[in-house]
Amino acid sequence: MQLKEIGEFGFIERFKPHFNDLLSGDIIGIGDDCAIIPANENEDWIVTTDLLMEDVHFLRQSISPFQLGYKSLAVNLSDIAAMGGTPIGSFLSIAIPKDLDVEYLDRFMEGYHKLSQKYNTALLGGDTTKSLKHLAINVTVIGKCSKGKARKRSDAKIGDVICVTGSLGDSAGGLQLLLDGVRTNTFHDYLLNKHHQPEPQIKEGIFLAKENGVNAMMDISDGISSDLKHILKASKVSAEVDIQSIPISDELRNESVKYNWNAIEKATSGGEDYELLLTVDPKDYDRVSKDFKMQFLKPLIKIGTITEGNPEINWTDKGKIIELSASGFNHFK
Amino acid sequence: MQLKEIGEFGFIERFKPHFNDLLSGDIIGIGDDCAIIPANENEDWIVTTDLLMEDVHFLRQSISPFQLGYKSLAVNLSDIAAMGGTPIGSFLSIAIPKDLDVEYLDRFMEGYHKLSQKYNTALLGGDTTKSLKHLAINVTVIGKCSKGKARKRSDAKIGDVICVTGSLGDSAGGLQLLLDGVRTNTFHDYLLNKHHQPEPQIKEGIFLAKENGVNAMMDISDGISSDLKHILKASKVSAEVDIQSIPISDELRNESVKYNWNAIEKATSGGEDYELLLTVDPKDYDRVSKDFKMQFLKPLIKIGTITEGNPEINWTDKGKIIELSASGFNHFK
Repeated sequence: MQLKEIGEFGFIERFKPHFNDLLSGDIIGIGDDCAIIPANENEDWIVTTDLLMEDVHFLRQSISPFQLGYKSLAVNLSDIAAMGGTPIGSFLSIAIPKDLDVEYLDRFMEGYHKLSQKYNTALLGGDTTKSLKHLAINVTVIGKCSKGKARKRSDAKIGDVICVTGSLGDSAGGLQLLLDGVRTNTFHDYLLNKHHQPEPQIKEGIFLAKENGVNAMMDISDGISSDLKHILKASKVSAEVDIQSIPISDELRNESVKYNWNAIEKATSGGEDYELLLTVDPKDYDRVSKDFKMQFLKPLIKIGTITEGNPEINWTDKGKIIELSASGFNHFK
Repeated sequence: MQLKEIGEFGFIERFKPHFNDLLSGDIIGIGDDCAIIPANENEDWIVTTDLLMEDVHFLRQSISPFQLGYKSLAVNLSDIAAMGGTPIGSFLSIAIPKDLDVEYLDRFMEGYHKLSQKYNTALLGGDTTKSLKHLAINVTVIGKCSKGKARKRSDAKIGDVICVTGSLGDSAGGLQLLLDGVRTNTFHDYLLNKHHQPEPQIKEGIFLAKENGVNAMMDISDGISSDLKHILKASKVSAEVDIQSIPISDELRNESVKYNWNAIEKATSGGEDYELLLTVDPKDYDRVSKDFKMQFLKPLIKIGTITEGNPEINWTDKGKIIELSASGFNHFK
C-alpha cells in the first residue's frame, strides 16, 4: 500500500494504539502541538519536533541561509506558542550535503541564533552529519507551562468564539510568488518575509494561556481549513466560519488581484502562517480581546463559532452557506 | 571553506560560544552525550537527539525495516544509558521517500516499538513528512537521572581505571561483511546483529550511575580511539590503554583471521558498538566490578588507566609503547 493512500494521519493511527500502554498516567503524548510531561509541582514541560527537508519544505535557492536557520527554529517555537508555553531550550540535527560550505552554515546558525536570542532559548544539543543529496534539518524544542495550563486542541466548547492572532494566507502568497518565478521587488518583501521568516507567537501564546476563557489553542501550520478540523475532532464539536471575517492583509489582497489568485483559498488552506488559532468562551471574549489589543496593539480576530455536531467546518459567506473544496496539504500526494 | 576541513566538532566550536550567554545557570548544554536540565528537587532530565540518513548511516537494502526501527531508537537510548539515565519518552521524525510503502513503515514501527517496550519508553510525538530521495530519521529521547547523578565526560580523575561493558569491534565487523559483499550465513549472524540491532546498555548505565567511584561515562559510538579522547579533553587528563586488554569476541577474532581484517583496528576505531566506556576510582574498581558481574553475569573490562598529561591516548602492547594511526570516523571526509 502506498503512503499517499492513507496520509500522514492514517499512518500515525496505525502505530499509535500500540504505544498507548507505554504511556504513564499524566503524560500526554501524540496528538497535540506538543507532548505534555509533568516536571514538578508547578510546571509541565512541553516538547515538539519538526523535520524540514530540502525541496519538500524549502528550496535552497529561494531562502537565504539566515532565513532558513530562523525558520527552522520558528516553526518549532510556534508549537510551543500554541500551548501557551515558554521555551527552555532547543536541539538541532542537521544533515549537510557536500556542496554546502562553512560560510552557508555560519549564516544558517546566525539566523537560528537570532531567534534563539529573541526568546531566550538556548541551543542545548543536536547532531551534525553528512547527507548525500538534500539538506535535512530537525529541531526539537522543550518548553514549560504552568501546571495544567497548557492549552490543548481538545478543550473547545460549544458556543466558543473562534479567533486568530493575525492575517492568514500571506505565507502562501509569498510561496506563490516563488513558485511562479515572479521577478520579485521590494513590494513583495512583506509576503516573502512572511513565508521565509515567520514569527512565532510566543508572547501572544503566553499571554493567552494566562487568560480565563481561552479554551482550545493551536498554531496554524497547514491552513485553518485543515488545522481547525484538528480542534473539532479532538474536542468533538463542529464549527461555523464566515469567509468574510477571515483576515487578509492588504498586501495579499493586492497581489491576488494582480496575479488572479484566490485570496480566500490562500488564507484558508495555504498554510505556514504560524498565527495562533484559539477558541474563547463568549462571556470572556470581549475582555480577552480588549486586553490582547492593549498588550499587542493588534486585534484578536473573530472568524467563527464552535457549534454542536460533526467535526467539520460549515463555511458561510455573509451568513449564507457555501462549499469550500480546498483542504490543507497532504504531504504525500 | 569546505566542512570537511574543520569537521563536525570544528563546526560546533564556531557557533557554540554565541549560544553560551543564553544558557541559564544550572542547565548543561552542548558537549556531552545528553544535555542536562534540572526538572525538580529530585531529578535532572537529560535529552539527546540523533539523525540517521540513508546511504550515510545505513543502506536500505542491507538492514531490515524492523532492525532500522530498533536501531534508530537504540542509538539514542544508548546516550541516555551513557549518563546513567532512565528513558521517559521518545520523539520520532521521519522523512519518507515515495518508493517506501506502508508495509515497510509498519515493520519499522514494530522494531521501534519492540525496543520502546523493552525499556518502557513511550513514543510521545514526532513529525512525518515526505523526502524526495533518502529516508531520514531523527529521534529525540528524554530521560531522567537522580539530581546531580548524571555521569558526565568531564569527571575522569587521574588514576581512574578505564573500563568497557562488552566486546568492541563487532559492529564494525558486521559492517565490513556487508561492505565486502560477503555471502553471509548464520555464522555471521552475531556480527551482523551487533551492527543492525545494537542493544543500549540502559540497565548497566542505571546500575553504574548508582555506584560510588564511577566517575566519567559515555557510550562508544565512534570507537574508543575517538570516544575516549572526548573524556580526556573534557576532563583535561591523559590515558594509557593496552591493546591486549581490549575485549574482542571470538566471532570477530575468527572472521578477522578468515578475511584478513585488523581486529584491533576494528575494536578501537570501528564505532557503533554502543557499549559503555567509563572511568572508575581505583579504590572502588574491585567492588564495582564484582557487583557488576553479579548483576549482569558479564565482567566490567579494564582496558587502561587515566593519567596526567595532554588529552591523548598512549597505546601500549603488553606494556610496550606503540603507535596507532587509526582514528574515529569523520563523517565529512
